Amino acid sequence: MKLFYCETLNPRKACAVARHLGSPVEFVRVNLAHGEHRRPDFLAINPNGRVPVLQDGDWSLWEANAIMCHLSDLAQSDLWPHDVRQVEVMRWLSWDAHHFTRPAGTLWFEHLIKPLIGMGPPDPALIASATAEFHSAAALLERHLAGRNHVVGDRLSIADFALASALPDAQASRIPLDPYPNIRRWHDSLLDIEAWRQPFPVSSAPLAA
Amino acid sequence: MKLFYCETLNPRKACAVARHLGSPVEFVRVNLAHGEHRRPDFLAINPNGRVPVLQDGDWSLWEANAIMCHLSDLAQSDLWPHDVRQVEVMRWLSWDAHHFTRPAGTLWFEHLIKPLIGMGPPDPALIASATAEFHSAAALLERHLAGRNHVVGDRLSIADFALASALPDAQASRIPLDPYPNIRRWHDSLLDIEAWRQPFPVSSAPLAA
Ligand SMILES: N[C@@H](CCC(=O)N[C@@H](CS)C(=O)NCC(=O)O)C(=O)O
Ligand SMILES: N[C@@H](CCC(=O)N[C@@H](CS)C(=O)NCC(=O)O)C(=O)O
Repeated sequence: MKLFYCETLNPRKACAVARHLGSPVEFVRVNLAHGEHRRPDFLAINPNGRVPVLQDGDWSLWEANAIMCHLSDLAQSDLWPHDVRQVEVMRWLSWDAHHFTRPAGTLWFEHLIKPLIGMGPPDPALIASATAEFHSAAALLERHLAGRNHVVGDRLSIADFALASALPDAQASRIPLDPYPNIRRWHDSLLDIEAWRQPFPVSSAPLAA
Repeated sequence: MKLFYCETLNPRKACAVARHLGSPVEFVRVNLAHGEHRRPDFLAINPNGRVPVLQDGDWSLWEANAIMCHLSDLAQSDLWPHDVRQVEVMRWLSWDAHHFTRPAGTLWFEHLIKPLIGMGPPDPALIASATAEFHSAAALLERHLAGRNHVVGDRLSIADFALASALPDAQASRIPLDPYPNIRRWHDSLLDIEAWRQPFPVSSAPLAA
């Protein structure tokens, strides 16, 4: 199996799970700056033209959340659980996509990626609305994490990786975590996991190369 | 169990599944126009302050996609499958949230909801970008649906309901479906399902009441 990635927030989820579980994948870097994700051979495995993608022979799977589930199932891990916790993981994956990493990802893109790829200055109106949305979502997560080490039950799941996806670069992305000690404590403990701290092949070129 | 809803696109998914499966839920309408979703008693069951929510005694579940899974599991239905199709359903739920109903929902909100609740005129820049994003996503779904009646395998799943969530109001929302005959055919056949055509209690007050 090949896992196509770049050092960005969606591939991070898939790569972290692959490394954490020791999944038998070959990491293949896609150079977004060179437009490799828009070439016909790439679109043939992901018509959505984005990373990550998992290719397994003739079959390919795109969408980071689905790749996390599949790699977990292949390894018979419970990162994607098949008991009563499953619906809780679904709740947080969905809430994350709609309400948490959505504004956090906007801040990451505006503050970190745009300057890196020369896309011009951040958009102040977008930053203002994403910052406000982030605070209202973060307040909810902060309360949920009181007295907890993981988002669902007392074990690591793909919901932790999904919710954390923009947080390793929080400072450079100006994602405001200061008011949220539970979120910071929870994410600090995720950073103790080697696969989360360093999900990408160490030989990876820097982001904009 | 109580299912809190309003006649809008996210609750539609949960209500349609509940009706389709005959789930033992009491439908409870939340009047968004009156701000009922911001009252303390509602926030106690959904701190995210939105519909739908499923309440089962002390436990409550928010996020429409998670509610669909849970109702399917309770009914031992395969709308949310537990075999190899599961990861395919995940792929489409995730793609839908990020790429398809996201722009479609923006068009629905700008064209249909804003006028209805007196929020002022639609935002032309937002409409332009959402329309462009919708076309690029719809082109992908159009190709996927060639020769298929359902999004995953040959059976109805919650992925169909998720992807369709903004489409019953496509015309009034100016969601441009004309160039996409496969999408129209697929959605027409979903509209043959009574629970999709009429997911809400018929005694429901009109949207803005
Ligand atoms: N919904 C997709 C989103 C993937 C995505 O947006 N990937 C970004 C990198 S983080 C990408 O490939 N961007 C290239 C582009 O949009 O042109 C997922 O969850 O995997
Ligand atoms: N991520 C939630 C979104 C739910 C949602 O946005 N519901 C809307 C109605 S479609 C709502 O309650 N809006 C009220 C508000 O945002 O104030 C889900 O998927 O269930």
